[in-house]
Amino acid sequence: MFKHEKQLLEIVNVERPNPTYAVMLQEQLGGPQGELKAAMQYISQSFRIKDQAIKDIFLDIASEELSHMEMVATAINMLNGHDLQAPAASIGNIEAHVLSGLNPMLTNASGELWTAAYVNVTGDLPADLLSNIAAEQRAKVVYEYLHRQINDKHVRQMIDFLLNREEAHNTMFRDCFQKIEDTGSNRDWGVDKDARLYFNLSTPGNFIGNQLHNPQHPSFNEPQNPPQH
Amino acid sequence: MFKHEKQLLEIVNVERPNPTYAVMLQEQLGGPQGELKAAMQYISQSFRIKDQAIKDIFLDIASEELSHMEMVATAINMLNGHDLQAPAASIGNIEAHVLSGLNPMLTNASGELWTAAYVNVTGDLPADLLSNIAAEQRAKVVYEYLHRQINDKHVRQMIDFLLNREEAHNTMFRDCFQKIEDTGSNRDWGVDKDARLYFNLSTPGNFIGNQLHNPQHPSFNEPQNPPQH
Amino acid sequence: MFKHEKQLLEIVNVERPNPTYAVMLQEQLGGPQGELKAAMQYISQSFRIKDQAIKDIFLDIASEELSHMEMVATAINMLNGHDLQAPAASIGNIEAHVLSGLNPMLTNASGELWTAAYVNVTGDLPADLLSNIAAEQRAKVVYEYLHRQINDKHVRQMIDFLLNREEAHNTMFRDCFQKIEDTGSNRDWGVDKDARLYFNLSTPGNFIGNQLHNPQHPSFNEPQNPPQH
Amino acid sequence: MFKHEKQLLEIVNVERPNPTYAVMLQEQLGGPQGELKAAMQYISQSFRIKDQAIKDIFLDIASEELSHMEMVATAINMLNGHDLQAPAASIGNIEAHVLSGLNPMLTNASGELWTAAYVNVTGDLPADLLSNIAAEQRAKVVYEYLHRQINDKHVRQMIDFLLNREEAHNTMFRDCFQKIEDTGSNRDWGVDKDARLYFNLSTPGNFIGNQLHNPQHPSFNEPQNPPQH
Amino acid sequence: MFKHEKQLLEIVNVERPNPTYAVMLQEQLGGPQGELKAAMQYISQSFRIKDQAIKDIFLDIASEELSHMEMVATAINMLNGHDLQAPAASIGNIEAHVLSGLNPMLTNASGELWTAAYVNVTGDLPADLLSNIAAEQRAKVVYEYLHRQINDKHVRQMIDFLLNREEAHNTMFRDCFQKIEDTGSNRDWGVDKDARLYFNLSTPGNFIGNQLHNPQHPSFNEPQNPPQH
Amino acid sequence: MFKHEKQLLEIVNVERPNPTYAVMLQEQLGGPQGELKAAMQYISQSFRIKDQAIKDIFLDIASEELSHMEMVATAINMLNGHDLQAPAASIGNIEAHVLSGLNPMLTNASGELWTAAYVNVTGDLPADLLSNIAAEQRAKVVYEYLHRQINDKHVRQMIDFLLNREEAHNTMFRDCFQKIEDTGSNRDWGVDKDARLYFNLSTPGNFIGNQLHNPQHPSFNEPQNPPQH
Repeated sequence: MFKHEKQLLEIVNVERPNPTYAVMLQEQLGGPQGELKAAMQYISQSFRIKDQAIKDIFLDIASEELSHMEMVATAINMLNGHDLQAPAASIGNIEAHVLSGLNPMLTNASGELWTAAYVNVTGDLPADLLSNIAAEQRAKVVYEYLHRQINDKHVRQMIDFLLNREEAHNTMFRDCFQKIEDTGSNRDWGVDKDARLYFNLSTPGNFIGNQLHNPQHPSFNEPQNPPQH
Repeated sequence: MFKHEKQLLEIVNVERPNPTYAVMLQEQLGGPQGELKAAMQYISQSFRIKDQAIKDIFLDIASEELSHMEMVATAINMLNGHDLQAPAASIGNIEAHVLSGLNPMLTNASGELWTAAYVNVTGDLPADLLSNIAAEQRAKVVYEYLHRQINDKHVRQMIDFLLNREEAHNTMFRDCFQKIEDTGSNRDWGVDKDARLYFNLSTPGNFIGNQLHNPQHPSFNEPQNPPQH
Repeated sequence: MFKHEKQLLEIVNVERPNPTYAVMLQEQLGGPQGELKAAMQYISQSFRIKDQAIKDIFLDIASEELSHMEMVATAINMLNGHDLQAPAASIGNIEAHVLSGLNPMLTNASGELWTAAYVNVTGDLPADLLSNIAAEQRAKVVYEYLHRQINDKHVRQMIDFLLNREEAHNTMFRDCFQKIEDTGSNRDWGVDKDARLYFNLSTPGNFIGNQLHNPQHPSFNEPQNPPQH
Repeated sequence: MFKHEKQLLEIVNVERPNPTYAVMLQEQLGGPQGELKAAMQYISQSFRIKDQAIKDIFLDIASEELSHMEMVATAINMLNGHDLQAPAASIGNIEAHVLSGLNPMLTNASGELWTAAYVNVTGDLPADLLSNIAAEQRAKVVYEYLHRQINDKHVRQMIDFLLNREEAHNTMFRDCFQKIEDTGSNRDWGVDKDARLYFNLSTPGNFIGNQLHNPQHPSFNEPQNPPQH
Repeated sequence: MFKHEKQLLEIVNVERPNPTYAVMLQEQLGGPQGELKAAMQYISQSFRIKDQAIKDIFLDIASEELSHMEMVATAINMLNGHDLQAPAASIGNIEAHVLSGLNPMLTNASGELWTAAYVNVTGDLPADLLSNIAAEQRAKVVYEYLHRQINDKHVRQMIDFLLNREEAHNTMFRDCFQKIEDTGSNRDWGVDKDARLYFNLSTPGNFIGNQLHNPQHPSFNEPQNPPQH
Repeated sequence: MFKHEKQLLEIVNVERPNPTYAVMLQEQLGGPQGELKAAMQYISQSFRIKDQAIKDIFLDIASEELSHMEMVATAINMLNGHDLQAPAASIGNIEAHVLSGLNPMLTNASGELWTAAYVNVTGDLPADLLSNIAAEQRAKVVYEYLHRQINDKHVRQMIDFLLNREEAHNTMFRDCFQKIEDTGSNRDWGVDKDARLYFNLSTPGNFIGNQLHNPQHPSFNEPQNPPQH
C-alpha cells in the first residue's frame, strides 16, 4: 500500500520563474534516467523478490524515487511561472504552453512521452541489481549536466540533494549485490571457452591478446553494508 | 512524499496459477485504463491545483491507485506460477516467459508498453475532472470484461473490490466537479452561435433539427458530497 | 463511405506567415486533444453502436472533426510560409524545415508522432460518451491556450469557430448520454459497500467523512436535445 | 470538407464469426500497410500540392482509403462475434476481449498501436508519389497474405476487391508521376561522379563492375492515363 | 558477419562547432529517412532473398548505410562542440545538452526516438524494392533540405557526397527491380475490373474518365545495369 | 566504415521449422535485451570516447553484436519455415504471417517494435560501462530463459554460443571500467552527508541502520585484462 504525505521529502524552492530551465528539468521527471523511471523499475522488480531484506530496500528506494519525482515536478511547476507564452520557453518541449497549462508533464526535455521501454525487469536478481546500479549512475550524470546549466541557488540545492541520494542508492544496491552475488545469472559463469575469446572485429587496434584470462561474474570490491532484517 | 506499507490495501489471493489469465490481467496493470495510468494522471494533475480540499482528494485517489497497481501486480505474479513456458500462456503478450522471468510488466495484455500518451493533463480543473470521471468509468468497464472471463473466486473478489472502488472515485470526482463547475473552461460557454449549430455530415439520418437549444457547460445532477477542509 | 469536398467547412486565412505559430498550432492537428484524435475516436467507437440515431451523431461529428483537421492543416500550411529555415521556427518541433518540406505533419507541437494511444474505445456506450465529453472539453481548453498566444485576426477567427464547435459537440454527446444513461456500465452502480468508502491516504487533509452518501451513475442535469430518427 | 454516407463503398459480409481471423485482419486496419495509414499519408501530402489535377487524385484516393478502412473495420466487427472470450482469439492481439468490448481497434494484428511513424510526407512530389506507389504495392502484398489464410467466401470477396483497388491506385499514382517526373528531387539527378560508383562492401559476391552506367531519375515505362482537369 | 574499419568511408570535417545545425543533422541519423533506417530496412529484407546477386547488393548498400550513419554521427559530434549549453542549441531536440553529454543520439531533429515503425519489410521482392527506391528518393530530399540551410563548406561536402550516394543506390535498386519485375506481387496484376475503375470521391475536379486503360505492374524505363554474379 | 562478410560469425542451423519458437527468439533480435539494442548502444556510445583502446573494444563488440543479430535472424528465418499460417505461430507476435512474409522483424516476441528508448548513452564513460555490464548480464538471462524452452539441438548450440559471448563482453567492459574508474561521474563520490543516509520509507522492515558507512564509487574486484594499444 502506498500513502502520501503532503510535506515534501525536502523543501523545494526557486529564486524566480525560468520557463526554459523548466523544460530542461523535465528530463529528470519524464526522461529515461529520471525519477519516474527509477520508481517504476524498482517497484516492478520488487514483486518477485523472495529475500525480504532486499525487497524492503527496493521499496524504500522506490518510495523515495516517487518522492523525488514530486520534488522535481514541484520545481518545474514553480519554474514554469504564470504566463502561457511558448516563445519564452525557447528550447525543447513546448507542451507546457500549448497543452498542459503549465503543469509538469511525463515527458523528457524534448517532449518524448515517458515509456515503459525505459524500465528493465528480468526476474534475475543479479541482473536487476546491475541494472539499478547503472541506472543510479546515469541519473547522477544527468543531474551533473543540469547542475552546470543553472545559477538559481535553490534549484542547485535541490539538484545537489537528489544527486547525492542517487549515490546513496547506488551504494545500497551494491550492498544487496554482495549478498546475492553467487546466485541466479552469476552461477555457471565463464565455464565455456567461448566466454574467454576476444574477437578483433574493428581495425586498426586490438586488445590484449586472444584470451580473457579470468572470466568471473561481476563482483564489487568495496566494504559493504549488507542488508539484514 | 510517498511512503509504502508492505501490507496490501486488500489481501490478494488466487485459487491456482493461470498464466493465460495473468496475461489478460496485465491490461489493468499497464494498459490505457489501468491502475498505473490512473495514478499517474491524478498525480500529474495535482501539481497545479490550488483548492487544497480538491488537491487532497486527487492525492488520496492517486495513492489508492498505486495501491491497486500493487494488488493487480501481486495477482499477476501469483497467476504466472513458477514455470517458464511460453506456450502455456497461449494468448497475447508472452514477455513474462521470455523477458521478465514471470515478473509482472508495465504492458497491456497484448504487450504494448505503457506510455504517458494515456495520461491527460490540461491544467484546467473542469476538463481534468471530466477526464477522470471518464477514466474511472472506462476502468470499471475493463474490470467487468475481466470479471466475466475468470472463475477463480479469489481473483473475482479482487476485481469486484477494484471495480467498486472505481465507482467510488467516480463519485468523488463528480463531487469535486460540482464545487468548481463555474470556473475555468466552463466559463463563457455557448455564447457564440457556432456553439448551437448542428452539421448533418453523415447521411442518411439526422438529428433533431438545426439548433442545439441549450448549450450549457457540463453539470451533473446527483446529490453531492462536496469536498471540504 | 467517406467523400471529400474541396471547399473547406469554413474559410481559413492568415494575415501573414508565422512559422513559430505554425509549430504551436500543430498541437491541434497531431496532438492528444487534436482533431485527428477526435475523428479517429468517434469513428472507432461508432462501429459497434446499435442505436442508429446515436451512431448517426457520432459519424456527423467524426466527419466534422476530419473537416476541422483539414482547416487546421490548411492554416499550418499557410503559417509555415515559403522558406525552409529551421532557426526561424524557433520553438518546438522543427520537422517542417528538415523533413516535410513545410507540409503539416501528424505530430504535436513538440514533434511527438500521433499515436492511437490517444484513442479510447471501450464498446460501452456510457463510458465512450463520457470519454468524448471529456475529450471535447480538453480540446476547448487547448484552443483557449492557443487563442491567447496569437494576434493574427484570421487565425483567431478560425480558433474561435473550432472552439465553439467543440462546445456544440460536447452538448450533443451529453444529449446522447441522457438517452442511454441507464444502460451498460451505468447499470448495477454503487450496490456494494466498497463503492461508498472514502480512503484517506494523503495527509494532512481529509474529505467529508468516511462515507459517500449517494453513489449513483453519472447523469447530467441540463435540458436536452435527445437524438431521434 | 469530409462527408460520410452510411452506405459502405462495397457491401461487407462474413459467413460466420471468426475471432482469430478478426485479429489477423486488424493488420489492414491499424498496421503499417493498412487503410488508415494510406488515408493519412495521402491527406497529409495533399496540403501542399499545387497541381490541382494531382491534388484531386490524392483526395479521391484518400477518401477511398477511409472508405476501405470502414469496410475492413466492419468485417472485423462481424468476425469478432458476440462473445468476450480472449482464449478464443487464440493468436496475436487480444485487446478486443479485454479492452474494446469487441470493437475494432487502431492496432495491427499483434496489438501495436497505430503510429504516424508509418506516414511519409516530404513536400517533394516525385518522392511522395514513389512512396505511394510502394505503399500500394505493400498493401497488395498484405492482402495476398490474408487472402490465403481464410476460407470465408465473403471475406475473400472483400479482400479481392480491396487488393484490386490498391492496384488501381498504384496505376493512378504512376500516371501522376509521369506528369511531374522532371520536377523537384528528380532534377539535377546523377550529375556527380559519386552517383555512379558501386561500393563492394559485402563479400563474397560483387555487382556488375565499378560503374553505374546510366544514373537517371526514376521513370516508369507503361502507357499512361495522365491526370487532367 | 559485420566488421568495422576505423577509417571512415569518406573523411568528415566541420569548419566550426554549430550546435543548432547538429540538431538539424540528427534528422538523418535517427529520423525516418535517415541512415539507420536505411541500413535496418535493407538488412531486414535481405534475410529471405534467394537471388544471390540481389542479396549481395542489398548487403553492399546496407553496409554503406551503416558507414553513412557513422559519418553523420561523426559530423554531429563535431558540430556539438564542447559546451553543455542547452540554450545555445536553440531549436528542436535538446537531449545532447541534458542527457547524452553531447553524444549523437538515435533520434530525429525534434527528439523523437528512432523506431522500427520506419522499416518496411514484406518478404515480397518487388514490393521491397519499390520501398527502397522510394526511401532513397526521400533520403535525397532531406539532404537537399539540409544542404540549403548550412554554409559550412565541409558539412556541405559531406551532404553532397551522401546525397549522390542515395542516387546511386536508387539506380541499383531499379536495376534489381528490372531483373525480377515479373515475379511476386507483380504477377496477376490488373486482371480484375476493379483494378481499372476510377472513383471520383473528392469534388470538384475529376480524373480522365472512369477507366484506367492500362493497369500494368510497375516497371521502370531506363537502361539498366542488371546485377549478375 | 562497416563491411559485411556473408559467412556468419558461427554456423546457424535448426533441426526443423518451429514457428512458435521463431516468435520467442524474436525477443533477442528486436527486444530490449537483444542484439540490435546492444549493437546500437555501443556504436552510439563510441562516438565521443577519447581513449583509443577502449573505443576499439566498443567497436569490436558492437560489430560482433551486429553479427549476432544476423545469426539470430538467420535462425528465426529457418524456424519460420515456409508456410504462411498464423494459427501455427500460436503465441505472441504474428506479424511474420500477416505482414513480413516470414521475414524476421525488428520487434520483440510480442510484437512491440524496436525503439531507441532501449539505448542508454550518457557521454560519461563510467556510467556507459556500467550500463553495458548490466546490459550484457540481462542478455545472458534472456538467453537462459530461451535455452530452457527449446529442445532443438542446433538452436541450443547457437544460444549457448551467444550466451557465452555475452559473458566475454561483460568481462571486457569490466576491464575497461577498471582502467577509467577514477574519472567522470566516479569523481567526487560520496562527499556529501546526503550520500550516506538511509531513508526507511517502506514498513515494516528496515536496513542496517541510518548510515551507509562507505559510499565509494563502483569498483569491481576481479583480476583484469586491461585494454592496451
